[in-house]
Amino acid sequence: MVARAMANFSLTDLRLVNPRDGWPSDKARAAASRADHVIDAVRLFDTVEAATADLNFVLATTARPRDSFKPVRGPEEAAQDLKRRIGLGEATGILFGRERWGLNNHEVGLADEIVTFPVDPNFASLNIAQAVLLMSYAFQVAGKEGDLSPRFEAKVPPPALKADLFRLFEHLEASLDRAGYFFPEAKREVLTQNLRTMLTKAAFSEPEVRTLRGVVKAFDHESGRLADGGGAKTGEGGE
Amino acid sequence: MVARAMANFSLTDLRLVNPRDGWPSDKARAAASRADHVIDAVRLFDTVEAATADLNFVLATTARPRDSFKPVRGPEEAAQDLKRRIGLGEATGILFGRERWGLNNHEVGLADEIVTFPVDPNFASLNIAQAVLLMSYAFQVAGKEGDLSPRFEAKVPPPALKADLFRLFEHLEASLDRAGYFFPEAKREVLTQNLRTMLTKAAFSEPEVRTLRGVVKAFDHESGRLADGGGAKTGEGGE
Repeated sequence: MVARAMANFSLTDLRLVNPRDGWPSDKARAAASRADHVIDAVRLFDTVEAATADLNFVLATTARPRDSFKPVRGPEEAAQDLKRRIGLGEATGILFGRERWGLNNHEVGLADEIVTFPVDPNFASLNIAQAVLLMSYAFQVAGKEGDLSPRFEAKVPPPALKADLFRLFEHLEASLDRAGYFFPEAKREVLTQNLRTMLTKAAFSEPEVRTLRGVVKAFDHESGRLADGGGAKTGEGGE
Repeated sequence: MVARAMANFSLTDLRLVNPRDGWPSDKARAAASRADHVIDAVRLFDTVEAATADLNFVLATTARPRDSFKPVRGPEEAAQDLKRRIGLGEATGILFGRERWGLNNHEVGLADEIVTFPVDPNFASLNIAQAVLLMSYAFQVAGKEGDLSPRFEAKVPPPALKADLFRLFEHLEASLDRAGYFFPEAKREVLTQNLRTMLTKAAFSEPEVRTLRGVVKAFDHESGRLADGGGAKTGEGGE
């Protein structure tokens, strides 16, 4: 049903993370009706991180605005922003959750912004295929009334690829772990989430992420040096 | 499914003309999930004429623009016009066709205007519930732009006071200096500027700046501990 919803609005790049019922799926192909081209092009991933690694910007869909400091947009505004980013050469994606309980906090944390649907708070009952349909429609009609002056926006560098950002997370968290930052252990999860959320929100470009890697590396070298009982100064400014 | 689609966007007035499988329908009630209030309020009619008799303005939905001299609108434009008319006190309705073959020419002829969906001409496959969902959504968001986002955006915390940001700069730079980051010395100025520029651009809030201070402090503690020849782990997560 998701494949059909996408095909109605000319979207074709469907990525699945650990599909519950396995893949390929005869049931999915049957439900997709004539959207075989979408089903044939499906790519499978083990993690959301892997599925979004080659993207610059990711929207997470949630049923209702969460207690999150990520920007929350309606479908129209979000779709317009996606079109603007695509016009600037960014690779973008929209993340949908499981049919029963959506995305968990970790998964939402991997996204740059949140898109939510203006449904009646007393009756919110969209399934995934319906959410995909609405988002695909919004994307199709976005920005039809007038241009968004990409000329002025062009100077802002795009956010780094998610793969680079995720590597920064891992590097920083390993170094902080060694430094005793995640203490007490019970706080590890929330501390990690806070860091990831704020570093994602900052939308650092690839050179900026590289600079941050250099910063962490400098601390790594220092602690290595001190653990070895001192030694020559190692410049990391060039990173 | 139509009742559920409507309920998501607070619409409740569902009128059926000669339902194929009779009425009331247990199957329909089950598919409507919790949209019982829509099912309970359904009204039955023998003809489209009877179903639309008390309306001032009727839109007919069609899968593709027909050879018709009626105005053809997209969902957004049509929805805005409906809201305008309702604001003027008009009673309005949207006419959807049969699942298999839509509305016949006579039925389309009863409507004032046509609304059609901007689907891919090579893959048009919306069922009635999806068409109702899209139209309900379009009606919900019509004329809302600017209305939706400020409410959501209010949650985004303001950037920290510059004084807090500057203290972070000083703290980070002192720690990095100690770690040998600014090497060779000639690069100190540009490296410092790069860091300050990117941390400013990120527009971190006060709690986020505090978190970053905690990160730097963790590295400080680690190097202090190692310089002292090791010692007890100091948790900095609470920062």
